[in-house]
Amino acid sequence: MHSSLLLGMMLVGAVAWTGCAASAERPGASGVMRHVVLFKFKDDANADDIRKVEGEFLALKSRIPSVQSLEWGTNVSPEGLNQGFTHCFFVTFADAKARDAYLPHAAHQEFVKVLRPVLDKVLVIDYVSKD
Amino acid sequence: MHSSLLLGMMLVGAVAWTGCAASAERPGASGVMRHVVLFKFKDDANADDIRKVEGEFLALKSRIPSVQSLEWGTNVSPEGLNQGFTHCFFVTFADAKARDAYLPHAAHQEFVKVLRPVLDKVLVIDYVSKD
Repeated sequence: MHSSLLLGMMLVGAVAWTGCAASAERPGASGVMRHVVLFKFKDDANADDIRKVEGEFLALKSRIPSVQSLEWGTNVSPEGLNQGFTHCFFVTFADAKARDAYLPHAAHQEFVKVLRPVLDKVLVIDYVSKD
Repeated sequence: MHSSLLLGMMLVGAVAWTGCAASAERPGASGVMRHVVLFKFKDDANADDIRKVEGEFLALKSRIPSVQSLEWGTNVSPEGLNQGFTHCFFVTFADAKARDAYLPHAAHQEFVKVLRPVLDKVLVIDYVSKD
């Protein structure tokens, strides 16, 4: 009976561990590389142009292996301190080396070609997360 | 034997679930409210002033109940697109209501009093996370 219990705990523990893998990079986790990218599009960029940029950025998650996670959204702050920036993309890498593999990656360079014609301004901050 | 196995799985499952609670807000999770705050300090702000701001911001995590998580770091991007901003604080709330409870909170207002005298510029973007 004890060995069954132990086996059950080991099996479920293994499944739980797999499901938890992403929690190491949760906000508040220390030591991962965050890559924060803000965009303001040109006034004459239309909705289709912007949707294409959003989709192409999101696709980098599957195109560049060193991307650990990627999320994004558009500004909903009531504070009015967004300096015109409307979009935030938040990319997580394991470390600086993984970020360094991303920047010159062909898929990233292709994305920049889609972005440039409709971009007014960009802001990028990378930081190693501390809590 | 089967009931022991089941009990073992339930027990370990419960423990694993608790340990995983934070993963719902991991990068790539949809639907949480992210509050991204960038600072550039005045040129005459000294290291002690800046350390105090860092510590007081970090303390908001325990002072304001609606803060789900808070992490931060200083810029290490090699791209030179940080527009002078050196610090990024990344705060997660369950939703807009939780963010709205944070902004006027007395502890946040006290923090702003510490920040203002040494602050050159600030940028804030909030977004609901999508993946």
